[in-house]
Amino acid sequence: MPSLPVTPPDAMEPAARAQLLDAVRFDHAGLVACIAQQHDTGEVLMMAWMNRAALAETLATGRVTYWSRSRGALWRKGESSGQVQKLVDLRLDCDGDALLALVDQTGVACHTGRRSCFFRALREGELAEITAPEVAPEALYGR
Amino acid sequence: MPSLPVTPPDAMEPAARAQLLDAVRFDHAGLVACIAQQHDTGEVLMMAWMNRAALAETLATGRVTYWSRSRGALWRKGESSGQVQKLVDLRLDCDGDALLALVDQTGVACHTGRRSCFFRALREGELAEITAPEVAPEALYGR
Repeated sequence: MPSLPVTPPDAMEPAARAQLLDAVRFDHAGLVACIAQQHDTGEVLMMAWMNRAALAETLATGRVTYWSRSRGALWRKGESSGQVQKLVDLRLDCDGDALLALVDQTGVACHTGRRSCFFRALREGELAEITAPEVAPEALYGR
Repeated sequence: MPSLPVTPPDAMEPAARAQLLDAVRFDHAGLVACIAQQHDTGEVLMMAWMNRAALAETLATGRVTYWSRSRGALWRKGESSGQVQKLVDLRLDCDGDALLALVDQTGVACHTGRRSCFFRALREGELAEITAPEVAPEALYGR
């Protein structure tokens, strides 16, 4: 994988970060959807949520941090599993209610051990798992 | 662009469609986020919302239909602009609350005339538009 800076240069400037934060239209729960895409292969890895604090931390550190709705806490991707996402570029959509994070994903993005969370689709007349886990979930979380 | 069937063969089977519909965890508003990705280039085009009826229609017709939250109505992508999305494959994520639609996008996906809605990012210390419109919005909607 190419060597990338952990923190994108543009994100180092507090004024720039504030400009992006202010352009996001967070929903009634204070959240915005964020799609993570592997920057070089184009693979869509996952979709999760950010609140303002998660987005600010992502921009400040260059490491993708979400808001876990189930845990009600910041979720520094990879903090349990080691499968971190380095931020390569962050893009905001036309109406400000969705983010696209181009990332460099270490290992797998999905808690099931698959590279991408989007592994279910219709095949041969039924809902099937179209990729197999690359690593066992126990290997990710059982440490 | 490759020639693709308008309706994916697997989606023709009502039982398969029902299985997928039942696996989706719609939110409290009855909606699920759907990411549209150009199937061959990998470009993430947009993110929008589907309710159960929109998803059922998408699967039945092979043409992507969303739910417009602003209009409170089904939004058959391209019905005003001609910029339709043919469904190539539809994938559901691990926890059932996000869809990834691989599509063949006619023209541009964004109402601003850009191919992708994700055209804003930090550049040189400020939030910038990183792509220019390919067509004028008036040409899309002024008919």
